[in-house]
Amino acid sequence: MEKMSETEINERLASMEGWGYEENAIHTSLEFDDFKDAFTVMTRIAFEAEKMNHHPDWSNVYNKLEITLSTHDAGGVTEKDFKLAKIIDDLVS
Amino acid sequence: MEKMSETEINERLASMEGWGYEENAIHTSLEFDDFKDAFTVMTRIAFEAEKMNHHPDWSNVYNKLEITLSTHDAGGVTEKDFKLAKIIDDLVS
Repeated sequence: MEKMSETEINERLASMEGWGYEENAIHTSLEFDDFKDAFTVMTRIAFEAEKMNHHPDWSNVYNKLEITLSTHDAGGVTEKDFKLAKIIDDLVS
Repeated sequence: MEKMSETEINERLASMEGWGYEENAIHTSLEFDDFKDAFTVMTRIAFEAEKMNHHPDWSNVYNKLEITLSTHDAGGVTEKDFKLAKIIDDLVS
């Protein structure tokens, strides 16, 4: 997996809603009705992440979920991150 | 639920392993073998937190889990936080 350039990343992000690029990673913030809804989505993401063997850096406070994706081995954002971001977007849309 | 004093909190923490007090909350860091183990524990904590209607602020990166407990309504640490901390300790021990 090759690290993408900032230009490539921004091109990809242009067609995605709610994601930004910062500090060598892509990020999104999600909000749900309550904790149960947030954790339900986390669980679905967890299964997909485990299947891909590519895991999010994420934090949760009640109904809020912050997700950061990067590929540690590549030292930046790769196609894998966009693949997981797409899966997350599909789960929450 | 009444906010506990710093003295009370530190007295309670003295008998607990791996927890610290900082910025009006109690914290712990846990490490597991892998993501699946970390998320399994998160799921068990999530059910207990939901049952108590008292939720952690937490973040996870692969096998690492950082947990922060405080009672927002009380503006600090209460008995509820120690109750949830005890449940977490019992789950991981």
